[in-house]
Amino acid sequence: MTMTAPDYEVRCRSSFEKQRFMDTIGARLVTVRPGEAVIELPFSSHLTQQHGFLHAGSIASIVDSACGYAALSLMPKGSAVLSVEFKINLMKPAAGSMFRATGKVLKSGKSLSVCTGIVESQEDNKWSVIAIMQATMIALTDQEKLND
Amino acid sequence: MTMTAPDYEVRCRSSFEKQRFMDTIGARLVTVRPGEAVIELPFSSHLTQQHGFLHAGSIASIVDSACGYAALSLMPKGSAVLSVEFKINLMKPAAGSMFRATGKVLKSGKSLSVCTGIVESQEDNKWSVIAIMQATMIALTDQEKLND
Amino acid sequence: MTMTAPDYEVRCRSSFEKQRFMDTIGARLVTVRPGEAVIELPFSSHLTQQHGFLHAGSIASIVDSACGYAALSLMPKGSAVLSVEFKINLMKPAAGSMFRATGKVLKSGKSLSVCTGIVESQEDNKWSVIAIMQATMIALTDQEKLND
Amino acid sequence: MTMTAPDYEVRCRSSFEKQRFMDTIGARLVTVRPGEAVIELPFSSHLTQQHGFLHAGSIASIVDSACGYAALSLMPKGSAVLSVEFKINLMKPAAGSMFRATGKVLKSGKSLSVCTGIVESQEDNKWSVIAIMQATMIALTDQEKLND
Repeated sequence: MTMTAPDYEVRCRSSFEKQRFMDTIGARLVTVRPGEAVIELPFSSHLTQQHGFLHAGSIASIVDSACGYAALSLMPKGSAVLSVEFKINLMKPAAGSMFRATGKVLKSGKSLSVCTGIVESQEDNKWSVIAIMQATMIALTDQEKLND
Repeated sequence: MTMTAPDYEVRCRSSFEKQRFMDTIGARLVTVRPGEAVIELPFSSHLTQQHGFLHAGSIASIVDSACGYAALSLMPKGSAVLSVEFKINLMKPAAGSMFRATGKVLKSGKSLSVCTGIVESQEDNKWSVIAIMQATMIALTDQEKLND
Repeated sequence: MTMTAPDYEVRCRSSFEKQRFMDTIGARLVTVRPGEAVIELPFSSHLTQQHGFLHAGSIASIVDSACGYAALSLMPKGSAVLSVEFKINLMKPAAGSMFRATGKVLKSGKSLSVCTGIVESQEDNKWSVIAIMQATMIALTDQEKLND
Repeated sequence: MTMTAPDYEVRCRSSFEKQRFMDTIGARLVTVRPGEAVIELPFSSHLTQQHGFLHAGSIASIVDSACGYAALSLMPKGSAVLSVEFKINLMKPAAGSMFRATGKVLKSGKSLSVCTGIVESQEDNKWSVIAIMQATMIALTDQEKLND
């Protein structure tokens, strides 16, 4: 596994700040450690689907970002991270007042990282897992970022 | 395959109107036919990731909804649709001025529907496929909707 | 979560015995506990891909079965289990002398179960994770088993 | 998209011949064209699950290989192909006398290829789609093949 560059937290937080979509939905990068990132999202009626639960897309968005920053935390300086693909199982309706996505790196390769993520929701002061993700992230250099 | 209930379009459009998240990101249900739904999303800087492309979560959100309404269009009256799981491959950075998600039902069962989706982006008056999805949707009756 | 029927192990082992494919590849159901099943597969040159590693399909087969029996162990008597879908990330070439797939149930619903699985390989007396799976299983009654 | 090297068919067929697992289950590479491969598998009672249908793992194995050779057909000479990940939806029980997997490349990048696959089964002289796959393949040079 890649040695973690010492400024990993600064790089991850600075990148997260540029994710306008995270700000739009109200998500916050809570912690980032080598190989792990946690994002929180308070419930908002702006993010719901037809039954008043959070939309699967909101849930997928925060756990995709959590996996991405978990992966970026282990990548060398100058790397950019992009999602290659992800798969999510939505195990319960996304009810609750607060949602927390945790992304973890299982394998950090030179170009590809494999991550797992969970989303928990808080209802009545109790947290339960509502979704799980398996994701592949790719490390690009700044020059590659826009091209294949 | 289930006979399509005649009011499928009204039911799908009425459900889509209740998806506050689709309104928040600026998505519009363009067409819904038996087994197929199309959603458009104009580019907005509120929806971007760290390099200025649309966030993978925005892209996943519209194609998840497109698959969901494709599935709902074939379900009997009184059904509610929920995403069981989906998997998305992001093939190109989500650059462009307009994004269009098309969801199609491959198999419509009594409870589960299997859908495929694509997302295309428009750049310089040319459309290209930027993402593909495979999704499983479940039909619930109104009473089941909140419970397992 | 469903109460585990007391004869779960007998039911799982009896079903596994009927999986001719597991016998064909040389796989063995090692343990089954409520919500968890472990399958072992010794390396065999009959199961390889073009570089001499186990074929991704062999790996997927044992972890799919492990997830299926993990799910079946929590289903009521008279249930049959079928795979709805699964997704696997192959993190390392499947080299080694022994392979062990562990499937666990994360959510056991009335019809659908969500499982996670891992495959470990043993090389030089050291085990390491080479693949991970996320899977959805469905419980059918005996009558439903052949129809939608 | 990469220009197809003229000897693509020889390279794919020669690699397929080395997949001992394909021989073990009785699968045959029927056709390979630039960006597409077709594999056939006759029903055999050695490949079944507990209800006498083909095991999901047999089905996944042939469509994974079909996607792999579809991808390899577009890769430059000297490339090796490995599966990064795949996801399969099993839409119907795998009943029938013959099974045919078709893999197609949707995007062929310098290292990663995104493929879609289907499996059809033949019953009573009628073919129907029983499974769909979305897969990511990676091109490695011969030297990289064993290492990260």
